[in-house]
Amino acid sequence: MKKLINGAEDVLAESLVGLAAAHPELRVDHANRIVYRAEPKPHGTVAILSGGGSGHEPLHAGYVGFGMLDAAVCGEIFTSPTPDQIALATKTVDTGAGVLHLVKNYTGDVMNFDMATELAGGIAVATVIIADDVAVEDSTYTAGRRGTGVTVLLEKIVGAAAEQGRDLAELAALARRVAGSGRSMGMALTSATLPASGKPNFDLGDAEIEVGVGIHGEPGRRRVPLGSAREIAAMLVEPILADYTFGGEPAVVMLNGMGATPLIELYVMFGEVSALLEKAGVRVARSLVGNYITSLDMAGCSVTVLRADDELLGLWDAPVSTPALRWGV
Amino acid sequence: MKKLINGAEDVLAESLVGLAAAHPELRVDHANRIVYRAEPKPHGTVAILSGGGSGHEPLHAGYVGFGMLDAAVCGEIFTSPTPDQIALATKTVDTGAGVLHLVKNYTGDVMNFDMATELAGGIAVATVIIADDVAVEDSTYTAGRRGTGVTVLLEKIVGAAAEQGRDLAELAALARRVAGSGRSMGMALTSATLPASGKPNFDLGDAEIEVGVGIHGEPGRRRVPLGSAREIAAMLVEPILADYTFGGEPAVVMLNGMGATPLIELYVMFGEVSALLEKAGVRVARSLVGNYITSLDMAGCSVTVLRADDELLGLWDAPVSTPALRWGV
Repeated sequence: MKKLINGAEDVLAESLVGLAAAHPELRVDHANRIVYRAEPKPHGTVAILSGGGSGHEPLHAGYVGFGMLDAAVCGEIFTSPTPDQIALATKTVDTGAGVLHLVKNYTGDVMNFDMATELAGGIAVATVIIADDVAVEDSTYTAGRRGTGVTVLLEKIVGAAAEQGRDLAELAALARRVAGSGRSMGMALTSATLPASGKPNFDLGDAEIEVGVGIHGEPGRRRVPLGSAREIAAMLVEPILADYTFGGEPAVVMLNGMGATPLIELYVMFGEVSALLEKAGVRVARSLVGNYITSLDMAGCSVTVLRADDELLGLWDAPVSTPALRWGV
Repeated sequence: MKKLINGAEDVLAESLVGLAAAHPELRVDHANRIVYRAEPKPHGTVAILSGGGSGHEPLHAGYVGFGMLDAAVCGEIFTSPTPDQIALATKTVDTGAGVLHLVKNYTGDVMNFDMATELAGGIAVATVIIADDVAVEDSTYTAGRRGTGVTVLLEKIVGAAAEQGRDLAELAALARRVAGSGRSMGMALTSATLPASGKPNFDLGDAEIEVGVGIHGEPGRRRVPLGSAREIAAMLVEPILADYTFGGEPAVVMLNGMGATPLIELYVMFGEVSALLEKAGVRVARSLVGNYITSLDMAGCSVTVLRADDELLGLWDAPVSTPALRWGV
């Protein structure tokens, strides 16, 4: 295992030290592994909270800041944060208007956010589950579909709406609409290697790929021989289009790298993916190309397509200032 | 070789198709592999041009846009762009006030930018060479030091100054000052694999690293056994501090990933690097952590430190809108 780390057990804690050093606009609670905005929202504004296992950086801590999350709760690598952590973050970010929990659909995450809501006592909490991965209906760590790329787009859009002062019920309804309007599908060229084990977390032949892989290396739909970028783009786009009608609406499209795939390849893939989408009548109105929801050092990519409208595009374009997404500020 | 590509010979051309699809604010001349801003600068403003071999994305095309480059000339992977390409870009971006060429110190790049200046005829061109890599004095493709990470910071700072309407001589002097005030040093955990050869471009044992590696896999100072993040940080920071006096001035620090290293590791490294710098009296005033000047799918990182002052920090903070660096717009 070749990694830029000290001890395997210190990776999360030490990455948060680096995050804090690089981003004075964040406040890191190192004891509890929670990342907050240094300047909290005004009193009476709904707070947006997310979190999950680490190893998917920049998700979630890289999306804390104006126009996006109020805090991110960091679990150990590929491990859900604890109810105590989430409850503490919930209490800390609440300004009196309630807290919206954005939760990727993994059994541990869903359960622990649920328990945290109880632990947080009198605070008004609404929860929206993200389950956008069309690859499989149930998976290693989920009942139902896995939550993946739509999370990034959802955090951006709902975060912008929260800055406008919308109330908790409105924000939860918006979040459910966005979560329901997006689909994702990923693939792996290689497995990730977990620092704690030092070994690839699944085996993949030298000339095969895993189509429909999860962000923890969960099995996908099938293993096939390595194909061209064009063939792989079709394997990702077709199941997305088969699962949901995007119609002629404008779409926000993300071509996401899994962590170890160079940007030049991601742009090759985006060229293929956007051509397939346009051919199918989906209008690519906004896009992201890069590493946004990763799986440590896995090579591969995922495609996310979100059906949008003028309201969602307006929220997408609104100012945001986080380590990983920043514009207009 | 496991890559998300079609043919090995099509990688650059097809990545530019994807870049154009993702960024309508850019105009891509596909025949000549030049990336321009879709909206050129006002008449009478100095244009900033850079370029070089591909495989280092987002460098350089990802830095085209308001507040940074006017155009980037893309050579084939790890290959200098041709004099004709560079001359055409020079003529196209000139608005009558001249063009500043920012050139990384590689023999082919320096020669071809030089020939392009002659080919561009009556256009006023000033050239600034970047040679910031402290690892070695001469290298595989260079007489003198290699140009690496300072390029990113230089393009940002000089690009901001150009938007203010400064003239060519002033911008060239500023660029020389910045190029002289920054130092870099990199390391590799693994080699990159070139699409055309399908093989690693150098061999590295399972438990060794190359300290002082170049962005084309050029040999560094030495090979040593894989150490901890803390040890590796010292191997990168010490030669930088030994080479230049940063004094108590504020510094812009970049912790750059070589392409295949996950962000969580880059943040671990940034924690170590920033602690070493602060201990040495260097004040980390601004930072970048991520993949900014890469070497295809090489795993590893580099450190860049730039001595700044109020003027340079002001130019750093000025609005920028490019695919890879964006704020304030």
